[in-house]
Amino acid sequence: MGPGPVDADPRVLRAMAASLVGQFDPFMTDTMNETMALWRTVWRTENEQTFLVDGTSRAGIEAALVSLLEPGDRVLVPVFGRFGHLLAEISARAGAEVHTIEAPWGEVFEPDQIADAVRRVRPKVLAVVHGDTSTTMAQPLEALGAIAREHDALLYVDATASLGGNSFETDAWGVDVATAGLQKCLGGPSGSAPVTVSVRAAALIRARKHVEAGIRSADDIDHGARIASNYLDLAQVMDYWGPRRLNHHTEATSMLYAARECARLLAVEGMDAAIARHALHGGAMLAGVRGLGLEVFGDVAHKMHNVVAVAIPDGVDGDAVRGALLSDFGLEIGTSFGSLHGKVWRIGTMGHNARRDAVLVTLAALEQALRRAGVPVPPGGGVDAALGVYESATAGVVA
Amino acid sequence: MGPGPVDADPRVLRAMAASLVGQFDPFMTDTMNETMALWRTVWRTENEQTFLVDGTSRAGIEAALVSLLEPGDRVLVPVFGRFGHLLAEISARAGAEVHTIEAPWGEVFEPDQIADAVRRVRPKVLAVVHGDTSTTMAQPLEALGAIAREHDALLYVDATASLGGNSFETDAWGVDVATAGLQKCLGGPSGSAPVTVSVRAAALIRARKHVEAGIRSADDIDHGARIASNYLDLAQVMDYWGPRRLNHHTEATSMLYAARECARLLAVEGMDAAIARHALHGGAMLAGVRGLGLEVFGDVAHKMHNVVAVAIPDGVDGDAVRGALLSDFGLEIGTSFGSLHGKVWRIGTMGHNARRDAVLVTLAALEQALRRAGVPVPPGGGVDAALGVYESATAGVVA
Repeated sequence: MGPGPVDADPRVLRAMAASLVGQFDPFMTDTMNETMALWRTVWRTENEQTFLVDGTSRAGIEAALVSLLEPGDRVLVPVFGRFGHLLAEISARAGAEVHTIEAPWGEVFEPDQIADAVRRVRPKVLAVVHGDTSTTMAQPLEALGAIAREHDALLYVDATASLGGNSFETDAWGVDVATAGLQKCLGGPSGSAPVTVSVRAAALIRARKHVEAGIRSADDIDHGARIASNYLDLAQVMDYWGPRRLNHHTEATSMLYAARECARLLAVEGMDAAIARHALHGGAMLAGVRGLGLEVFGDVAHKMHNVVAVAIPDGVDGDAVRGALLSDFGLEIGTSFGSLHGKVWRIGTMGHNARRDAVLVTLAALEQALRRAGVPVPPGGGVDAALGVYESATAGVVA
Repeated sequence: MGPGPVDADPRVLRAMAASLVGQFDPFMTDTMNETMALWRTVWRTENEQTFLVDGTSRAGIEAALVSLLEPGDRVLVPVFGRFGHLLAEISARAGAEVHTIEAPWGEVFEPDQIADAVRRVRPKVLAVVHGDTSTTMAQPLEALGAIAREHDALLYVDATASLGGNSFETDAWGVDVATAGLQKCLGGPSGSAPVTVSVRAAALIRARKHVEAGIRSADDIDHGARIASNYLDLAQVMDYWGPRRLNHHTEATSMLYAARECARLLAVEGMDAAIARHALHGGAMLAGVRGLGLEVFGDVAHKMHNVVAVAIPDGVDGDAVRGALLSDFGLEIGTSFGSLHGKVWRIGTMGHNARRDAVLVTLAALEQALRRAGVPVPPGGGVDAALGVYESATAGVVA
């Protein structure tokens, strides 16, 4: 019940045990095409270029940034948590001129703040984290595509922590490139990075010179245009997933099966239903921790559905409580990074763990662990508050 | 029965269905440490830095080269097949000054040829493919560690296609960095890249400046020293796997389970026994295709145990025969690349497919497919020849 990675859906785990097939077997081609179609449903996009990068969510981020950014290009990163710093760091390694604006941890940006910065910096790429688990905040993105287009910038979004549990509209919001990982709301294991690329971003990436086998020296390559990575060169990865199936890496077939199953389960449930499920169980967890008398960190109106940051009560050893939850109750909740380290726990309700029983048993165990740590807690306060949310939701459905 | 990826061992596939745990759960730490120890057995090394990169074998190659090579560094790549070109290409993208020597496809280099080139080029890194599936050749490596050391170079080896099926002695041969993937002789799926790094290579990589969060622009970084990738920065990956468990990517836990199971199965079998198994079944396949009257491509004395390149008889449509094997017999054999395209089939006997029944059923089906394609084949010639190899081996054991 931490901020991710979380338990994978057992159906996803079983999907990985399926037999492998050859990389150019017709079944493999069909599976790749089906996977692309299923992920278009998850991403809410018509983008033909919707595929997987074979690595963790971080590989997807780096593939997007190293493929979009040439050395010296300007990138603007609005930073409101740890993963904004990661986007800045990866962009700097790609040789970009990195500009950041920062919001205090626990807050998000107003669209005008971002628009002002875009106007000032004139970036080639506006690179934004959607949901940052380090603070639990979700940056509203609805207005950013138009802001980027108005200033001829591309919008890149890291949707790792949010996708599947919070609204995400690739096409309607004008997102050019978005990447994710399976290990948060999508119900799978880390190790595959779903990516979607708009027509204009794909054209920009394709225009960068391919470096083919036979290159002998860096001098043979146009330094400005070349993509510094072979493995994460999205121009080549798109050709691999495209109708020509040009050989690149050897697809990680078991992770492909996992990614297909994650998307299939979401498509069957329906994206709206999956997001509503995360809203419901996240709301119950929020009510529950408050029912235990705990304070919640940050601007709750902009919190992701799938994670809540809970202030560790004064005088309590946060790691000892986490340790007791794990060793005595078999439940993991998260610690925190940076300025929040030692100040909050992060409790997730995402993917396969966005379930009523998972919420209630976590609140029941947390009550016991807090009581034993000397925190005065109202008996049943957490579970009762969560059940109240569930009863209201059911009443709403009945009405 | 192609040159890889091949069927994974069912025990490896089942291992991936195990439940996930949190990234800093004591069980996870134990599993990572156990995996490191098991892979030391496979690599025949005492290297503390023996771990996994989360991606395909190509990710491992790029992680090694981008972490070792600074822009302007000289690298020498002896090229004797397609994957030598890949090492050169990845090195060029990393900004290195790439020098190559080339052997005709189907041959390998004499150590003196490589020593002469090292003397002339004075590279920082000598980067060699061990076994190149494009030609089936295995470059002898025994002498190369000493040659590299004599000229103050580091020896990097891509052992993707060879490891587990052919002798590989990281420490005895003086290999500094070696990488692989699971999908060849190791019996697993693509998607995890085992890596081992010598003490002196680890020190060199660590000495390159880390780029930490907070970097705002490429100007803040020493361009010479920085590692251009975050995801494939082995300095950070080593810290993640090391005792400090510094947060980097989110480990691809299901692929970790797969990699652990591959190494566990090899450790139980014993590395010498696994290599002997590949020699036996590869020898039976070699005898079998010759028994069908087919010519074998290349210098057979330097062929990998686990793959054979078979000349497509004149007038035969190689892809039609491959199609018939797949659609009628459920067996895949490989096509070829580059100068061998359309000239040879590549038949593998590796990992879980290095088995007597797999060899014999492939030869039986190939006989039928050749006969139907109008090739005059001696009835039973392939199976009889392979059985002869098995009988001799058994007689040898009895004697």
